[in-house]
Amino acid sequence: MVLLQKPSLVSKIFAEFLGTFVLVFGGCGAAVFAAKVVGDDGLNMGIGFLGVALAFGLTVVVMAYAVGHVSGGHFNPAVTLGCVLAGRTPVKDAVPYWITQLVAGIVAGGVVLLIASGNPDYSLAKDGLATNGYGEFSPNGFSLLSVLIAEFVLTAIFLYVILGTTDDRSPVGMAPLAIGLSLTLIHLVAIPVSNTSVNPARSFGVAVFAGGDALGQVWVFFLAPLAGAAVAGLTYNLLFPKAVEVPITEGG
Amino acid sequence: MVLLQKPSLVSKIFAEFLGTFVLVFGGCGAAVFAAKVVGDDGLNMGIGFLGVALAFGLTVVVMAYAVGHVSGGHFNPAVTLGCVLAGRTPVKDAVPYWITQLVAGIVAGGVVLLIASGNPDYSLAKDGLATNGYGEFSPNGFSLLSVLIAEFVLTAIFLYVILGTTDDRSPVGMAPLAIGLSLTLIHLVAIPVSNTSVNPARSFGVAVFAGGDALGQVWVFFLAPLAGAAVAGLTYNLLFPKAVEVPITEGG
Amino acid sequence: MVLLQKPSLVSKIFAEFLGTFVLVFGGCGAAVFAAKVVGDDGLNMGIGFLGVALAFGLTVVVMAYAVGHVSGGHFNPAVTLGCVLAGRTPVKDAVPYWITQLVAGIVAGGVVLLIASGNPDYSLAKDGLATNGYGEFSPNGFSLLSVLIAEFVLTAIFLYVILGTTDDRSPVGMAPLAIGLSLTLIHLVAIPVSNTSVNPARSFGVAVFAGGDALGQVWVFFLAPLAGAAVAGLTYNLLFPKAVEVPITEGG
Amino acid sequence: MVLLQKPSLVSKIFAEFLGTFVLVFGGCGAAVFAAKVVGDDGLNMGIGFLGVALAFGLTVVVMAYAVGHVSGGHFNPAVTLGCVLAGRTPVKDAVPYWITQLVAGIVAGGVVLLIASGNPDYSLAKDGLATNGYGEFSPNGFSLLSVLIAEFVLTAIFLYVILGTTDDRSPVGMAPLAIGLSLTLIHLVAIPVSNTSVNPARSFGVAVFAGGDALGQVWVFFLAPLAGAAVAGLTYNLLFPKAVEVPITEGG
Repeated sequence: MVLLQKPSLVSKIFAEFLGTFVLVFGGCGAAVFAAKVVGDDGLNMGIGFLGVALAFGLTVVVMAYAVGHVSGGHFNPAVTLGCVLAGRTPVKDAVPYWITQLVAGIVAGGVVLLIASGNPDYSLAKDGLATNGYGEFSPNGFSLLSVLIAEFVLTAIFLYVILGTTDDRSPVGMAPLAIGLSLTLIHLVAIPVSNTSVNPARSFGVAVFAGGDALGQVWVFFLAPLAGAAVAGLTYNLLFPKAVEVPITEGG
Repeated sequence: MVLLQKPSLVSKIFAEFLGTFVLVFGGCGAAVFAAKVVGDDGLNMGIGFLGVALAFGLTVVVMAYAVGHVSGGHFNPAVTLGCVLAGRTPVKDAVPYWITQLVAGIVAGGVVLLIASGNPDYSLAKDGLATNGYGEFSPNGFSLLSVLIAEFVLTAIFLYVILGTTDDRSPVGMAPLAIGLSLTLIHLVAIPVSNTSVNPARSFGVAVFAGGDALGQVWVFFLAPLAGAAVAGLTYNLLFPKAVEVPITEGG
Repeated sequence: MVLLQKPSLVSKIFAEFLGTFVLVFGGCGAAVFAAKVVGDDGLNMGIGFLGVALAFGLTVVVMAYAVGHVSGGHFNPAVTLGCVLAGRTPVKDAVPYWITQLVAGIVAGGVVLLIASGNPDYSLAKDGLATNGYGEFSPNGFSLLSVLIAEFVLTAIFLYVILGTTDDRSPVGMAPLAIGLSLTLIHLVAIPVSNTSVNPARSFGVAVFAGGDALGQVWVFFLAPLAGAAVAGLTYNLLFPKAVEVPITEGG
Repeated sequence: MVLLQKPSLVSKIFAEFLGTFVLVFGGCGAAVFAAKVVGDDGLNMGIGFLGVALAFGLTVVVMAYAVGHVSGGHFNPAVTLGCVLAGRTPVKDAVPYWITQLVAGIVAGGVVLLIASGNPDYSLAKDGLATNGYGEFSPNGFSLLSVLIAEFVLTAIFLYVILGTTDDRSPVGMAPLAIGLSLTLIHLVAIPVSNTSVNPARSFGVAVFAGGDALGQVWVFFLAPLAGAAVAGLTYNLLFPKAVEVPITEGG
């Protein structure tokens, strides 16, 4: 008799909650509190888009190392979809993971807003809550089409990185670092385009509080990331099948 | 007979001293010497909050790799508390670790001040010493409540990362990197809020020299980090118990 | 009989396509969309040359972890040349790899341009497409000679890092991180000089769309990187031969 | 009979030459070419002190992974001194390593100057060559005493990190990353103080070309780093002796 150790669903739910909370709290918190901090001399001491990109990536690096062994470390409904379609995650886990991720995103969005409200210069209407958007609500005015393409392509890349680095042929123990750093890369490219989502839980968690146009545009950040993740999840095994086995006769 | 190798308490004390010294000297030194360096052209060549966040995180990355095998690499009284409460660190180590960390923080704060005083443009009264604070003494004016929430939540996250990445189910050898990078993440979020503590030794080591309001507010940076660490330390084993054992019968 | 697992050439082509696409889309996309984002207050929230350098490096870090086990993770015709000359990659793979890399670079350049065109303030003539150049078309006016030297030296360094970190005497699993970070280093040095190529596929993929002088100067970014890679590939085994074997008599 | 593989002294010399060349060329090149790149709009697109700190650290990360298995990856006369005093490096290697490092630093300084001279706006007299200095020649006016303390303390920290992470009790394969990142940390702290040396070969390699006061002050960047390295090398084994052996009787 062998004892196979498997985390319970409850532990997996806690892990996804904690990881998604850190992703949205850490990433959006950095964007709201720290991206721009201008003193009387007009200099920005804040972390800019570069710092926000680093913050989002690090949330995944650290939480995937911390609880990835429990839940797989998705923290993102699009990732769960792609992993299910690629046969990596059981179908029955999908709905509990999705619900947990959306709830964690909302809780994190609320805590960011709560802390921001303690800054007398902050107003939700004026400063926003790091929401995603297109057109007038894109940080640099990118069109809906540009946002759809960017979010679709970048989420597909994200899933290829996730599926490739957790492939049993890849170096052990490095997947969380590579996956998290790919999220930093994705933000380095797309913050000016869409404020970068690739994650419906991240978009919804803050759009709920911002309301208005942010909430009206949030469908884009469900549609494009889920579509990109689905395409990657459905094609990974076709593009990179288990390697061809070449017979070698030893000792003749 | 088996020989179990254990570092002596003296070596552990040296390791905690050295690591905490590097954390406070490196992090606060970067903040005091390098965050803002403005030339005659009005451009800031300095490292900004992003560089300070990186510096604090790297102190833990490098010292945890260097001496973590000796002492566990806490360098922070809140971390020691959380690790004791989670059953990872012997209770009898707590007081020696705490004293060492506080002393090392003060020594590091003194060396930062000594070097800074060799810059003719520096004055402690005007430029400060990278102390933590709320309200008027928060870098961006955040209220006491915001600071308490941020420090509590971020220290709890820090401890979950520490306990999760050093869990025997996590990838070997990556914990110091993940833990240090989580401290960078924490600083990316919270420098504008509280100048970021999550570490009473870091706060106390510089407040002692700054005195006045910095020292008057330092209780916050004992209370909130210790409370956040305690909650994480007490709940980690409940949220993520050793995995369920599923019996498998081999060979029928 | 032993089964040796080898990826098929089709999988290797997909891997090189995907990796090179991510390199050019991620690196040049970050440069075009995000390097400079200036608001009404005149502050640049964009990622600057530092963020672009990080983006290029991370493309290689993440894709080498994701698909390096399939194709070796070259993503660059100069790397393929150097690896062939050092005896690491079969000669018969060279032409399929080169064609794939050039095609992937062009596809990526096209997607960058497509997304950029959705920004009403963007114009290819005015804002360019992150092309490489010398003289008038160097970001900071560096001469042809300076560009040739920089691209030659930096590509040679890149290949020494690639060949050294994938040497069987180096730590397992860390090569993708080291190689990608060396590309970040190379960009930190040379963006102002040549906009940094060290990769003909990266240069050609965007020059095709920019046309004019960018396309007229693109020969430099074939010549210098290929020459630097060739020198490193031809000398690595001479400089660092398999180690001397020192006989030790046991139990003698 | 067992075959012990040992690199030849010639390979070790090549490795130290290549690594030191990359350190000085990459770090000082980033500082000279890329730290400040100001366009007509007055914005600095350059990498600032943060980017220079990253560049210096990455040179060590990537070259230690690439050739560390050959020579140990010192690239710095102070590191060689500390490793000899700690018993990690044979005394007979010291002089060949030192000569190689100094020569490689000078060659690298020459290539940086050669490339810089291809920028029509560059002049050695006006823009310098990333030399180290104190007082009037410190980037932010720090006194000789401050520079001595900073260089001494930071080099000692550097050596403790090197000796600790290559200790056989530390995680395998992570030392090059930790050591390189500690050099980034050191630069984040000390660029405004002394332009950061902790490495006589880095200081001498550019001071030779700058001449004048830079060469006149270069003694400081031999004295303080060598002293700091010596103290760390002499004390490491005392502070962290091989662990106490605790006998456990099994089955007793």
